Amino acid sequence: MIKIGVIGYGYWGPNLVRNFSEVSGSSVVSVSDLRSERLDLAKSRYPMVKTTTDHQELITDPEIDAVVIATPVSTHFNLAMQALEAGKHVLVEKPMTATADEGARLIDKAQRCKRVLLVDHTFVYMGAVRKIRELIQAGELGEIHYYDSTRVNLGLFQHDVNVTWDLAVHDLAILDYVLGAKVTAVSATGINHVSNAPENVAYMTLFFDSSLIAHINVNWLSPVKVRLALIGGSKKMIVFDDLQPSEKIKIYDTGITVNNTPDSIYEIRIGYRTGDMWAPRFDTTEALRAEALHFIDCIENGREPDTNGEMGLRVVRVLEAATKSIREKGKLITL
Amino acid sequence: MIKIGVIGYGYWGPNLVRNFSEVSGSSVVSVSDLRSERLDLAKSRYPMVKTTTDHQELITDPEIDAVVIATPVSTHFNLAMQALEAGKHVLVEKPMTATADEGARLIDKAQRCKRVLLVDHTFVYMGAVRKIRELIQAGELGEIHYYDSTRVNLGLFQHDVNVTWDLAVHDLAILDYVLGAKVTAVSATGINHVSNAPENVAYMTLFFDSSLIAHINVNWLSPVKVRLALIGGSKKMIVFDDLQPSEKIKIYDTGITVNNTPDSIYEIRIGYRTGDMWAPRFDTTEALRAEALHFIDCIENGREPDTNGEMGLRVVRVLEAATKSIREKGKLITL
Amino acid sequence: MIKIGVIGYGYWGPNLVRNFSEVSGSSVVSVSDLRSERLDLAKSRYPMVKTTTDHQELITDPEIDAVVIATPVSTHFNLAMQALEAGKHVLVEKPMTATADEGARLIDKAQRCKRVLLVDHTFVYMGAVRKIRELIQAGELGEIHYYDSTRVNLGLFQHDVNVTWDLAVHDLAILDYVLGAKVTAVSATGINHVSNAPENVAYMTLFFDSSLIAHINVNWLSPVKVRLALIGGSKKMIVFDDLQPSEKIKIYDTGITVNNTPDSIYEIRIGYRTGDMWAPRFDTTEALRAEALHFIDCIENGREPDTNGEMGLRVVRVLEAATKSIREKGKLITL
Amino acid sequence: MIKIGVIGYGYWGPNLVRNFSEVSGSSVVSVSDLRSERLDLAKSRYPMVKTTTDHQELITDPEIDAVVIATPVSTHFNLAMQALEAGKHVLVEKPMTATADEGARLIDKAQRCKRVLLVDHTFVYMGAVRKIRELIQAGELGEIHYYDSTRVNLGLFQHDVNVTWDLAVHDLAILDYVLGAKVTAVSATGINHVSNAPENVAYMTLFFDSSLIAHINVNWLSPVKVRLALIGGSKKMIVFDDLQPSEKIKIYDTGITVNNTPDSIYEIRIGYRTGDMWAPRFDTTEALRAEALHFIDCIENGREPDTNGEMGLRVVRVLEAATKSIREKGKLITL
Repeated sequence: MIKIGVIGYGYWGPNLVRNFSEVSGSSVVSVSDLRSERLDLAKSRYPMVKTTTDHQELITDPEIDAVVIATPVSTHFNLAMQALEAGKHVLVEKPMTATADEGARLIDKAQRCKRVLLVDHTFVYMGAVRKIRELIQAGELGEIHYYDSTRVNLGLFQHDVNVTWDLAVHDLAILDYVLGAKVTAVSATGINHVSNAPENVAYMTLFFDSSLIAHINVNWLSPVKVRLALIGGSKKMIVFDDLQPSEKIKIYDTGITVNNTPDSIYEIRIGYRTGDMWAPRFDTTEALRAEALHFIDCIENGREPDTNGEMGLRVVRVLEAATKSIREKGKLITL
Repeated sequence: MIKIGVIGYGYWGPNLVRNFSEVSGSSVVSVSDLRSERLDLAKSRYPMVKTTTDHQELITDPEIDAVVIATPVSTHFNLAMQALEAGKHVLVEKPMTATADEGARLIDKAQRCKRVLLVDHTFVYMGAVRKIRELIQAGELGEIHYYDSTRVNLGLFQHDVNVTWDLAVHDLAILDYVLGAKVTAVSATGINHVSNAPENVAYMTLFFDSSLIAHINVNWLSPVKVRLALIGGSKKMIVFDDLQPSEKIKIYDTGITVNNTPDSIYEIRIGYRTGDMWAPRFDTTEALRAEALHFIDCIENGREPDTNGEMGLRVVRVLEAATKSIREKGKLITL
Repeated sequence: MIKIGVIGYGYWGPNLVRNFSEVSGSSVVSVSDLRSERLDLAKSRYPMVKTTTDHQELITDPEIDAVVIATPVSTHFNLAMQALEAGKHVLVEKPMTATADEGARLIDKAQRCKRVLLVDHTFVYMGAVRKIRELIQAGELGEIHYYDSTRVNLGLFQHDVNVTWDLAVHDLAILDYVLGAKVTAVSATGINHVSNAPENVAYMTLFFDSSLIAHINVNWLSPVKVRLALIGGSKKMIVFDDLQPSEKIKIYDTGITVNNTPDSIYEIRIGYRTGDMWAPRFDTTEALRAEALHFIDCIENGREPDTNGEMGLRVVRVLEAATKSIREKGKLITL
Repeated sequence: MIKIGVIGYGYWGPNLVRNFSEVSGSSVVSVSDLRSERLDLAKSRYPMVKTTTDHQELITDPEIDAVVIATPVSTHFNLAMQALEAGKHVLVEKPMTATADEGARLIDKAQRCKRVLLVDHTFVYMGAVRKIRELIQAGELGEIHYYDSTRVNLGLFQHDVNVTWDLAVHDLAILDYVLGAKVTAVSATGINHVSNAPENVAYMTLFFDSSLIAHINVNWLSPVKVRLALIGGSKKMIVFDDLQPSEKIKIYDTGITVNNTPDSIYEIRIGYRTGDMWAPRFDTTEALRAEALHFIDCIENGREPDTNGEMGLRVVRVLEAATKSIREKGKLITL
């Protein structure tokens, strides 16, 4: 039984507490938050859990095996570092850290401490995303031509990071997990509509060492919520609409055929192929539950998390590059 | 009765012939195309229309008042110039020309000849787009924060121009007409998945002299067709989904409120407001019919077209800049 | 080359004229309508076609091989009978006749004259419906449990027949063609909201000699258009949404499993199975074009139409029974 | 502080426990269920709550003010009667009872005991339904012409009652609350696809003392979930799609105009009007939370519940009539 302490009981913390309470193999023994009203809420739901406004109490608590960090990104590094130093395993909210440098230091620390460091890229534990990876790795889509995601909604504006750190971070994790391709350069643009606030609208193009291109459209000021990714392959294509109650993944047996016959030197002949569409079933377990079980398994059996520090760091590096590119109005930033 | 000659009876030509045949005030007297099988088709539908494989016959035909050009973009300049020189009014398919220089020369020619030059930016004549303009000009949306359009489908790949010239051209015309804002710079990215072919996927960000940003996502290799534009204003926001059979325009009384009270120096307080949604009725006349009637009106009454040469040229200038930016992987091109 | 005369150039007649003009194997030589303005329209589109306000001229025209009747249902019998007596093949709009008795007499006449009698149940010639029949006949769905259709929109109110004769007629034809099951009894309800007018809202339940049930919901007073049929089978189920631009047919590998183990005497254990969904491609030729070609083929090669008089009569018998049941507020009418 | 005991911790019980735990004004002190594993689950979530397999313990517990009954319908009468006799207020799951006779006896008992009897017709407490009632009562829709609901999904098959008692019950409550119209007769049809089980597909038509008609389509064997009601009025019409994440209610300024001019004795002239669509905002509080607060308010302030015994009884009477009509294949049953 892994004993868990959770730092931060704001927007996401309650989901973490609920899942680590409900799965077998772990129990939540302590919750900290700076706001006493949040602790009151935690207490009303989990009367047996200890609560404190001082996270140090939690980090130094010898009863606790693992610390879950669900606080603003600027605090991730210090909290995770202290927890690792105290010998705790760490699950840290995404993005892993505010800078790539901080991320590298955490990875190093975790390795030297021989502690598990898992970054909460929840999408990687979603049945739909696992199914997409499975299809791509089995070659169903052929060569991947593009990944194009729109992820927009109204709010929640953040004060310390721009919208890419809040929303594009999901696509970066999905891309890393599903395609395993290395981003070589980024061009991004964006704007802020609230003065002195970070960009609330942003567009990123990612380049790779292949004919793959990725594009991510994120926006905190949209009248409607959209969660739509198109993945184009040379054989088949996927539409991933995360807001559909069912049939989130649709696979289209659709594409082009290129006919380069001798007499077509001056003319590329392109044919179009549209075939059946297929929506496969997949595991609909709550992603965070699967992640909680995976974290416990990694701790108990010394496994490497699917969303380990290295992956978290790769994501942060792209976010840093994108933020820099936005400031320079689309300038290509090489990674 | 304006007598019309149509050059090009391929994909779009038949729609032009049909509309100029059916509206009162014009009749189609001649159609030319290089392919005799296309002329056979035109003849079977319109037995009274003259057909020819030689467009010169049509341009020099003294019976003809106006020439409609529905051929590949690379031929627009020469055909339009010849028609103007022969004293004909000209309706030319979008994009107006292959280069801004050609566009400027056509404008100049038309002015000196005192002939009407109308660029077929059909969307400008669509009831939905007119309604959007009306709402924006009445101040319903407040200050416009962004225009974000996704316009993707499978095919038709073109050989001479990239996907922005085929699809983004529509959004550039809508932006010009609806917002009347001047594009100051462009950053664009894209890729081609067929060797030696133009880019079939592209992403453009447009900058303006204000806090407006525009983004256009175009793709010839999408498994599904999407025609979705979000227009965010400080008061209200619009979702324009052109594929909906009804309710193409939805207006959301949704947005943010920014509270800059003295004690919020370190914290911007943003509130969210979601209210009613409203889908107004609008004129559902076929856009091309409205455009045909407008062209006739401009000829008969010496009016300036809503989509005149200047507008066509502004669009071409952005397309040129975007194409240049794509080649330089997102580099900002100032207009 | 089959020479066609078309009686009635109102709502549907233009579609028939267009298709019989465009397919190879037939030409439209004459159109009649009581309204001269409709004939003017026909003339403007087809300058070579003869027009007349007197359908007798058309029926007695020796040049004409086949008469297409697109007039109100109350006139079908007389017009079709006259045409058959004049030795013409007949394509008659659905429903075939206003009464079953009239239908039986037409069938008899056509047989004795050895002329083709085709009822224009257009849906039977639609690629989607043919695909559904193919799937059901191949046993893909298992035993069919139910057919449940909603077919509602605003207008067009008819003066002589209730909404079942206008809208449910389509489902009755689809059911007849796709399932080939004999309706044994009908219970129907409905109401009229315009005084002295026929019912504009109606609901029909059809019973069969099996555990199949069919239900049809039709309405001329709906704010939105719906064309949705669910077909439940013991193995798989189909959703047929005719308003979708693509993916009109979706096949769900979904259902229940019944476990009647000894200890379940007092408890039926029902399990639920939800699997993949699959949207097959099918022929997207315009149904009326396929029907026109089929009519020509039947005439030329002495074939029996897929929608022959017997089928048309079966549909009329159900409509008569439903109309009677509606008047008696759901009373079961046995066929 | 109202002390609540909950009988039944199956499918719906947990939602009741959660809401009565979280609202201010009540606390859940005891939960009973026949299955000890369900009690274990309750205990793990609410460690302070007493649990028992014997509901008598709970009913006779002097600490308890009100009993909430979330058990199969056949047990409702006995449990509610015992609770009332023990002086408890009662909230009973819908449908209120298995027969109208039982319902009448409960109402009588509650009146004589002066105890609150609330039937859990949750939809009545939903913001969307309250908004629809408000619009109709304000005359926005004009005279109501029809209510047409489709409520289908896969499962959960029940063993003791047919699908109307499980699904149509919601529409009957909505109709009663929103329109306040008295059902005068019912014609219903249905079928069971599992031998010896109740009907899993059913269709009901309800008649009223006006030109209103209502129709309810319910099905436990549908491949897709549908929750769609159309409400047609003489002025406007509503589409209520409960599965939409937002814009559940759409109001269409659409309808017909009837022109009975003198010369139209032989012809009813019907015009069609399609105007704007409008999706109003409404309160999105969880309906069960609003219901829990209402129950507490009724107890504390002696108010009559919006879903009192009389309403519950009216619904049961229609369900009884529909079940009888189904057995007689659509025969009209007068209420």
